[in-house]
Amino acid sequence: MNLVSKVLQQAVDEFAQLPGVGHKTAFRFVLHLLKKEPEELRKFGNTFLQLQEQVRYCTDCFNITDKDVCDICADHRRDRTTICVVEDIRDVVSIENTDQYKGLYHVLGGIISPLDGVGPSDLNIAPLLERLQSGEPKEVIFALSTTMEGDTTNFYLSRQLQKFDVKLSTLARGVSVGGGLEYTDELTLGRSLVNRVPYENTLAK
Amino acid sequence: MNLVSKVLQQAVDEFAQLPGVGHKTAFRFVLHLLKKEPEELRKFGNTFLQLQEQVRYCTDCFNITDKDVCDICADHRRDRTTICVVEDIRDVVSIENTDQYKGLYHVLGGIISPLDGVGPSDLNIAPLLERLQSGEPKEVIFALSTTMEGDTTNFYLSRQLQKFDVKLSTLARGVSVGGGLEYTDELTLGRSLVNRVPYENTLAK
Repeated sequence: MNLVSKVLQQAVDEFAQLPGVGHKTAFRFVLHLLKKEPEELRKFGNTFLQLQEQVRYCTDCFNITDKDVCDICADHRRDRTTICVVEDIRDVVSIENTDQYKGLYHVLGGIISPLDGVGPSDLNIAPLLERLQSGEPKEVIFALSTTMEGDTTNFYLSRQLQKFDVKLSTLARGVSVGGGLEYTDELTLGRSLVNRVPYENTLAK
Repeated sequence: MNLVSKVLQQAVDEFAQLPGVGHKTAFRFVLHLLKKEPEELRKFGNTFLQLQEQVRYCTDCFNITDKDVCDICADHRRDRTTICVVEDIRDVVSIENTDQYKGLYHVLGGIISPLDGVGPSDLNIAPLLERLQSGEPKEVIFALSTTMEGDTTNFYLSRQLQKFDVKLSTLARGVSVGGGLEYTDELTLGRSLVNRVPYENTLAK
């Protein structure tokens, strides 16, 4: 796209580097911003400068935070004996939004994926082992993707955690809540039969 | 979405105000930016501050520019006797990308649309009349949307421009280049038959 102004071109290029945004959409974004008050556009730019200055990773769980330790790790009402291992910060938000988990997290920053050149040393595994050494955590929940890479990472982690006295668990796999059986894939349906649970467990508490 | 950090929440909110971007996509954008080098994130923020400072509207044609007069109006190689009237800055870019037009533009900033509360006085029509008073322009091309609102605006403009000695024209309406006839709507196909052109005109020059 050949734009008339250099700074306009630059703004479009900045948006176009975002995932799933092409040059036409980026141009639409810029025109949308330009229609706003100058004050709001300044606020938009400043927000990302602040983001760069303030955001860092929690020294305990590698969640994103603007302090040294994130709000979840700092919250003393949370159950400090349970650690939920997730791939990504987005997963923390997803699990938090369920309102069903009151323990702590540990963000790996990815999963083991030899094809993408990601090995165990690229992930935050050593800090997880350090956290377990304190003896406080009693359970580690693996909440990784249910893909081959996720399973590989689960297996690797389970080996590394053998030496600690912690219970290991993974998320239940089964049919979606509200989903029809005819749309559930065979692997999931098979697994949900093998791992069937007593009926009274499924009743909401 | 309940995020862990205030500045993160703010960044997500800023993205989520863009057209077609929800909170999940906005969060994905922010995480994408956070994975980059701090320097690049700072550049991202600064680009929009510069945009706010530098971008304004061309005093002649109301195109976006970072100078008083836009590059198109300032370019003396362009044909100053022809003015193409468009709705929006995006249309200038679209027409420029065809490489088929060498005249000037006039950006109305919208079209007459009583349902949306846009009347003639909300558009840059008076400045267009002023430009014509110089006597330099000899042709005005209406390149507005082919909707009822676009036709209304064309009609209003044609009345206003009657008193000037200029030729008025509109974009040709007809079947798309590369389009199958079976997918062309009846109105367009009908119009393309009524306004059929000598065969030799369609050969590329």
